[in-house]
Amino acid sequence: MHDTTDPVANLQALVACPSLTPAEGGALALLESMLVPLGFSVERPVFATEGTPDVENLYARHGRNGPNLMYAGHTDVVPPGRETAWTHPPFAGTVANGELFGRGAVDMKGSIACFVSALARLEAEGRLERGSVSLVITGDEEGPSINGTSRLLEWATDRGERFDAALVGEPSNRETLGDMIKIGRRGSISGRVTVEGVQGHVAYPHLADNPIPGLLALLSGLIATPLDEGTDSFPASNLEVTTIDVGNPSTNVIPASVSAGFNIRFCDVWDGETIATEIERRLAAAAEGITGRGERGALSYRLDWVGRISPVFLTRDDRLVETLAGAVERTLERTPELSTTGGTSDARFIKDYCPVVEFGLVGQTMHKVDERVPLSDLEALTRVYMDFIVHWFA
Amino acid sequence: MHDTTDPVANLQALVACPSLTPAEGGALALLESMLVPLGFSVERPVFATEGTPDVENLYARHGRNGPNLMYAGHTDVVPPGRETAWTHPPFAGTVANGELFGRGAVDMKGSIACFVSALARLEAEGRLERGSVSLVITGDEEGPSINGTSRLLEWATDRGERFDAALVGEPSNRETLGDMIKIGRRGSISGRVTVEGVQGHVAYPHLADNPIPGLLALLSGLIATPLDEGTDSFPASNLEVTTIDVGNPSTNVIPASVSAGFNIRFCDVWDGETIATEIERRLAAAAEGITGRGERGALSYRLDWVGRISPVFLTRDDRLVETLAGAVERTLERTPELSTTGGTSDARFIKDYCPVVEFGLVGQTMHKVDERVPLSDLEALTRVYMDFIVHWFA
Repeated sequence: MHDTTDPVANLQALVACPSLTPAEGGALALLESMLVPLGFSVERPVFATEGTPDVENLYARHGRNGPNLMYAGHTDVVPPGRETAWTHPPFAGTVANGELFGRGAVDMKGSIACFVSALARLEAEGRLERGSVSLVITGDEEGPSINGTSRLLEWATDRGERFDAALVGEPSNRETLGDMIKIGRRGSISGRVTVEGVQGHVAYPHLADNPIPGLLALLSGLIATPLDEGTDSFPASNLEVTTIDVGNPSTNVIPASVSAGFNIRFCDVWDGETIATEIERRLAAAAEGITGRGERGALSYRLDWVGRISPVFLTRDDRLVETLAGAVERTLERTPELSTTGGTSDARFIKDYCPVVEFGLVGQTMHKVDERVPLSDLEALTRVYMDFIVHWFA
Repeated sequence: MHDTTDPVANLQALVACPSLTPAEGGALALLESMLVPLGFSVERPVFATEGTPDVENLYARHGRNGPNLMYAGHTDVVPPGRETAWTHPPFAGTVANGELFGRGAVDMKGSIACFVSALARLEAEGRLERGSVSLVITGDEEGPSINGTSRLLEWATDRGERFDAALVGEPSNRETLGDMIKIGRRGSISGRVTVEGVQGHVAYPHLADNPIPGLLALLSGLIATPLDEGTDSFPASNLEVTTIDVGNPSTNVIPASVSAGFNIRFCDVWDGETIATEIERRLAAAAEGITGRGERGALSYRLDWVGRISPVFLTRDDRLVETLAGAVERTLERTPELSTTGGTSDARFIKDYCPVVEFGLVGQTMHKVDERVPLSDLEALTRVYMDFIVHWFA
């Protein structure tokens, strides 16, 4: 085993594991082999659900007493895309010009490498004696997220594990290490609106009922005015129409139906129920406003909500947020923005168990060709994590 | 051979030929065998174009002198759909309750059966002595219409054939035999408008550029106001948006591009060029009217015209129109509406050779399950055609 106090060596070893979601790729076995010498008990439960791939996960704990600080993350990575487009191979962990190249370098094997390094240094210095540190690591964050963090937390709780606070290592920084901590997220809800018309020939429009103008009016009604202006804690809610689909190949046929999909990221002005009601109200008002349909009567349409609603959440544990922000300030001499922007992460599952914050590397190259991290960021993040752990237990 | 003065017997024989477009199905061979005994010279040229099926056609002429009256039609039929849904088999020609059932009964083997019957009766009475009657019959009207009437007319003209007037036997009547003659058609033009945006994650809309709101604004601009109110000869122009396509399966992704197809049926206020210019003007005005795009700048979009433009046309041969309307009035005691409504027909090709009018059966059951024609309509249409032929040559 390499020296696990070195985050660069940790990351090179992790990047070399081809853990394309949901494959384990040796990454969790490697992590286990790094944690056991540090005094962690490690378990690797596999979760299965019909219709989705089996997923390996890892739960490790150092210490048996409270309080219990959770670090959460994932070793699975998104596909590298065209490998020949990379300057250095995506699973080699090549260091060039002070940067380490590789798929997962920032999202988020890099953060795991730094956290392990922080633990190894603290353990070597005898500073890991109070309370417990637990690692909740999944191989299913980039995939369907069904057999990952959500089930791992249920599994751990069933065995009596309790958590007092959590740090998620997702890339939270926009441009520079230390510029942003995430302390919550907007909610997310997706829907599909469908208008049924009557198919017919374009030359006889009076015998048909084209559903497209009605859908245009409904969508215009949905996006005409902003949902809100945001709050002190959250950016404004936002609705994006993500697709419109007819699929009519005939230029002389009026189609029978059309549907459009949309997604809303909503702030704490709303909850899942009130935002849904607002959308239903806007659609009904737009439908009522459509005139000139004559004998066809009022526009009828169907609204279907799609998938799960992710609720909005905000971390209200001031000490947790202040300890993390303080660690960034003390280590990097930079005051991080406390943000609720961006997409969902596994924090949406963790928030039901304990307060959660997110801090990791800079996200700019994540999911792209030539994903990479400056070696200096790896050392700096390791020191932030050390400072955070020490002060949280203090 | 059956008695060709009987339109019912003619139609039963034609329906029994499974001439699903573009298959000949024995229908043109049968027609030849009916026409030769009446003194017609018959030729059946086959036209081929790479990428489309070979098509059989029929050209028959009775007499060598002018004037030459053309009857135009097609023996190909659209598919019957689910055959078990038919009350009587689609290719049996069953007579029940005074109606003849079968695919093509009204569109338009029925008209051909009546025209042949009219010719047979006039020939038997020695009343087919003046000028010439020509039959221009294709097996490619319901398909791509590439190797059909258009090429058959070129072929005939190359051989020195000249035409003085044409009658197309398409089902022209709306509800009752004699209620409508078609004397022209609106033009047709199809286009596709595409907006390119920038793909991205719905949680980071400022890093993406959703093309859908721009397309909604463009389409709203296209359909906001009528193109015109029609003219004395034509109903108003009409634009139908026929499809919108994104095909984005991910509810958390803003799509990169969206496109919509549309078709316009335009009246004689316009020609192909001026209507295209008007659409370009409307799109440009709508794009200029889109505000609030900030750094993204003005909306850019692409407009592609699709396929051939069908020009608008109106038959200006008063004697031809009056002879046909008179035949309807004398035979059916009904004054037909002179109409330019409805979809295109092969008249769009014929109009470049001679004046053309359209009169056939009642279109209500065409292209549907249980396509059928009252036997009384077959007898009545035969008498209209006889009267028309006699008076046109008078």
